Amino acid sequence: MALDLRSRHIKNPVDVAEYLFRRLHEVGIRSVHGLPGDYNLVALDYIPRCGLHWVGNCNELNAGYAADGYARVKGISAIVTTFGVGELSAVNAIAGAYSEYVPVVHIVGYPSTTSQRDGMLLHHTLGNGDFNVFSKMSTQISCAVSMLNHQHEAAMLIDNAIRECWLHSRPVYIALPTDMVQKKVDGDRLNTPLDLSYPPNDPEKEDYVVDVVLKYLHAARNPVILVDACAIRHRALKETHDFVEKSGIPTFVAPMGKGAVNESLPNYGGVYAGDGSNKGVRERVESADLVISIGAIKSDFNTAGFTYRISQLNTIDFHSYTVRVRYSEYPGVRMNGVLQKVAEKLGKLNIHPGPIPSNEIPEVEIMSPEPTITQAWFWPRLGQWLKKDDVVITETGTANFGIWETRFPENVTAISQVLWGSIGYATGSCQGAALAAKEMGIKRTILFTGDGSFQLTAQELSTMIRNKLNPIIFIICNNGYTIERFIHGWEDSYNDVQEWKYKELPFAFGAEKGSVLTYRVETKKQVEELFWDQEFASGDTQKLRFVELVMPWDDAPSALKSTAQAAARRNAEA
Amino acid sequence: MALDLRSRHIKNPVDVAEYLFRRLHEVGIRSVHGLPGDYNLVALDYIPRCGLHWVGNCNELNAGYAADGYARVKGISAIVTTFGVGELSAVNAIAGAYSEYVPVVHIVGYPSTTSQRDGMLLHHTLGNGDFNVFSKMSTQISCAVSMLNHQHEAAMLIDNAIRECWLHSRPVYIALPTDMVQKKVDGDRLNTPLDLSYPPNDPEKEDYVVDVVLKYLHAARNPVILVDACAIRHRALKETHDFVEKSGIPTFVAPMGKGAVNESLPNYGGVYAGDGSNKGVRERVESADLVISIGAIKSDFNTAGFTYRISQLNTIDFHSYTVRVRYSEYPGVRMNGVLQKVAEKLGKLNIHPGPIPSNEIPEVEIMSPEPTITQAWFWPRLGQWLKKDDVVITETGTANFGIWETRFPENVTAISQVLWGSIGYATGSCQGAALAAKEMGIKRTILFTGDGSFQLTAQELSTMIRNKLNPIIFIICNNGYTIERFIHGWEDSYNDVQEWKYKELPFAFGAEKGSVLTYRVETKKQVEELFWDQEFASGDTQKLRFVELVMPWDDAPSALKSTAQAAARRNAEA
Repeated sequence: MALDLRSRHIKNPVDVAEYLFRRLHEVGIRSVHGLPGDYNLVALDYIPRCGLHWVGNCNELNAGYAADGYARVKGISAIVTTFGVGELSAVNAIAGAYSEYVPVVHIVGYPSTTSQRDGMLLHHTLGNGDFNVFSKMSTQISCAVSMLNHQHEAAMLIDNAIRECWLHSRPVYIALPTDMVQKKVDGDRLNTPLDLSYPPNDPEKEDYVVDVVLKYLHAARNPVILVDACAIRHRALKETHDFVEKSGIPTFVAPMGKGAVNESLPNYGGVYAGDGSNKGVRERVESADLVISIGAIKSDFNTAGFTYRISQLNTIDFHSYTVRVRYSEYPGVRMNGVLQKVAEKLGKLNIHPGPIPSNEIPEVEIMSPEPTITQAWFWPRLGQWLKKDDVVITETGTANFGIWETRFPENVTAISQVLWGSIGYATGSCQGAALAAKEMGIKRTILFTGDGSFQLTAQELSTMIRNKLNPIIFIICNNGYTIERFIHGWEDSYNDVQEWKYKELPFAFGAEKGSVLTYRVETKKQVEELFWDQEFASGDTQKLRFVELVMPWDDAPSALKSTAQAAARRNAEA
Repeated sequence: MALDLRSRHIKNPVDVAEYLFRRLHEVGIRSVHGLPGDYNLVALDYIPRCGLHWVGNCNELNAGYAADGYARVKGISAIVTTFGVGELSAVNAIAGAYSEYVPVVHIVGYPSTTSQRDGMLLHHTLGNGDFNVFSKMSTQISCAVSMLNHQHEAAMLIDNAIRECWLHSRPVYIALPTDMVQKKVDGDRLNTPLDLSYPPNDPEKEDYVVDVVLKYLHAARNPVILVDACAIRHRALKETHDFVEKSGIPTFVAPMGKGAVNESLPNYGGVYAGDGSNKGVRERVESADLVISIGAIKSDFNTAGFTYRISQLNTIDFHSYTVRVRYSEYPGVRMNGVLQKVAEKLGKLNIHPGPIPSNEIPEVEIMSPEPTITQAWFWPRLGQWLKKDDVVITETGTANFGIWETRFPENVTAISQVLWGSIGYATGSCQGAALAAKEMGIKRTILFTGDGSFQLTAQELSTMIRNKLNPIIFIICNNGYTIERFIHGWEDSYNDVQEWKYKELPFAFGAEKGSVLTYRVETKKQVEELFWDQEFASGDTQKLRFVELVMPWDDAPSALKSTAQAAARRNAEA
């Protein structure tokens, strides 16, 4: 190795990898997801030394999903992959995090800068000497791409990347070549914590917007609040909570905003999603003379197929870096400051009450003599069983639409991928979410996935076992891709999946007998018994719980049905 | 739906999807890999109608690996994924096919052209209205990207894409929007088969090169032939076989060229890979006064860490579109025609015989009283057991290096990913290879993978069961990523994996008892018994066979050891 001349001028030298992992620790990360690969091995040595836990996933896509789940609970996460083969396996998960505003630091172990410069014909390359192909792909799905190719800028690039990741709430890509891992950088920089604060709004501009908002608010006779995903992802939950609670305005959430609002508040009214809304919600929201929309993402699945009927003339939109009042735009004004001041100054308002959602099971379901577990019965029943602080993950499919009918207790974290919608996500995400929850002392992480979806990423169950995590996992056994059937191919075999003996999997994946409790429920009565079972429901048991939840193959939540119909129509449009 | 005016002028209209799948059938594809997704469902309806079988994989990465394996046996393959989430999960597999010259047609179901034009906020998008992000990523790893956005050019683009795929032996990307699936194109085009022939060399130029080659060949006293991957991938095997057989020149293969040469020929000499060569091979190859190199890819893992010692002054290189004699380049001359003419005209040669490889087990292994199954013992022993026409898949890791020590019977197809080297590949690839083999009447497909590698893509075992495939699968149980340990982290926990009960998996994945035979072998004696077991070895049984092959965690083939040392050195170089 060449004599490292630069290091001699550094007072308190630390290795690049140590610097990186200590920064990750500083922002709250305690576990790092990923897989070993020869271009990242030396870097992995630093993980335990920096007080971090190495998860050791089964594959990179699953690791990416897990990092996404961890970040949604803990605020930010990290994944380490290896050049080419490893990083590309994770691309779908990283794209999902980009799409849904989840801050994931993706560290990729690169061949040495010397090998790169010489264009060597190394394994894990396309054989063309181009070492920038994969980072170029990642520029599309990262808010920063930092190539740590030079010692003098490494610490600065690391700091910038983590800051960008946090502030934009999106993935960043850090390329760490093997020969840079042990290069020295200035450790004294670590004495100054990263500044992760959002730049404040211009006060004059902010006050102006606050006054405009208040003017419309005071003029309104029956306003509503509609909270969506970006309130969560851009960290405006405190301001949103204060505004919702203080104003008493009837408040609704979009599907992606589930969990953003305390659903036990008296002015919480349910899920608004156009045609897919909870009972009574559509009428209330669409008859409002003012809709205060916070952090909206109006995607097809979030609006039950673009079925909102709200006029922009009645809308105030709060976004991460802009506010829009009717058609007047106020770019550069972040919602947080405005919401906070509006809550402080709002005074007395005209409020018509909204509908009160409940977890009451629909009459028709209660009266039905059928023992079968229907979607319409299950999701409100679940709401009665959930507890404060639960983390609830729902897969794209029946679960993701069913959960619209579940009213949460206070402070539930809801995780789903409504916009990106990659099936298989939820199982990987559950591993990361359960780990983050454990680190934070949260007691229950609960996953709902389908049999078709589970098969994509099933081996992450092994990672949960390896890491001694104890989530409660429901596999909805309904013979394949039910959401696809509702779009096209009702009985076509391409929507079937191989029938697995799901309950045997935890043990095949090495769980010791007794460390995992398995169940199969086929009737409503069995669900009732399960929910009443203290060991099953406990937040304190050290046992993973794994349930085959058998539901009819041709049943789906009503919101899924209407959304699927809209999707099929749009697919045929020419 | 708007009246389709264009269709009225077409005499024999067929739907775009039908046209596409009939073309795939024409070039030899009988099974299509992939997963359903709402943007490809209507297209999937055409698969059975066009005489094709839908495989229905568990996830897209595995489907991509399977398509790669299928193409290596059958010549070309196809995979269908859905926009965004599906295609990105397959990116690593497609990049591998690009890197290793494997022709895979990747069909991606896209949102309708209307939705694209309107920039709608659909699921499976990044939420930014950009529908070209993912196809842009794929341009890096495809030799053609065809967006079927216009009816009038769809048939032409499909034909071009399949032709490019075949001729360049690399993946192509075909975007099929939902509203284009049923658009009409001219079915009469299908009466003219695609022209998949390589353009012939300019005869005068070809003859000139042939004369130059013959001049050096006749002057040589102890020439050797060295065959590598591109002879296989660029379809020069017939010409190579003729030349090897007719010339009688001692012939060697690079690791990526395993299977390209009939290893039962008397002039076959073994594997040449610099420091990783078979016994006696290095001396013979490096003392040759002429090396006729056919289809070389001199990557690190293919050369045991760039340890060739062959002078270009002694070398004639045959490539897919160029020939190089010493330092004289002849661009635009394809190897096939030149090789054929050289074989025809070569006449009498000076030939010193080469070493004769065998499947004899090294003396030290035979004398050892240890019952443990060592790498040095196993791979030559395997060579004694293999049969003519077997398909043998080896995973990156100990298997991929171990197989260098196995002398094949005639006509073995060897599949491995020496350049791209993505672990997990082999299990997915085995599914596709076994399916292709079944379609071709080949009796045995045999997989060797490691426990660490198997965990990445384990669920493809389910796809094999679902498709009633009966490969023979060996899981090398050696407690984790042994290849990584030899590079870095000898006893570090990041190179460990969760211990699975592998033999239970086929049944958890729904195999009926009796349809899968499972074994665990821990000693050489047990391997002997297994190899003598007629039911196990049979090519006619309808049973999948699944073996836990227990080997020491700290043992590796000698070629792996030297290659890993070279990799570790290069990683540290600055």
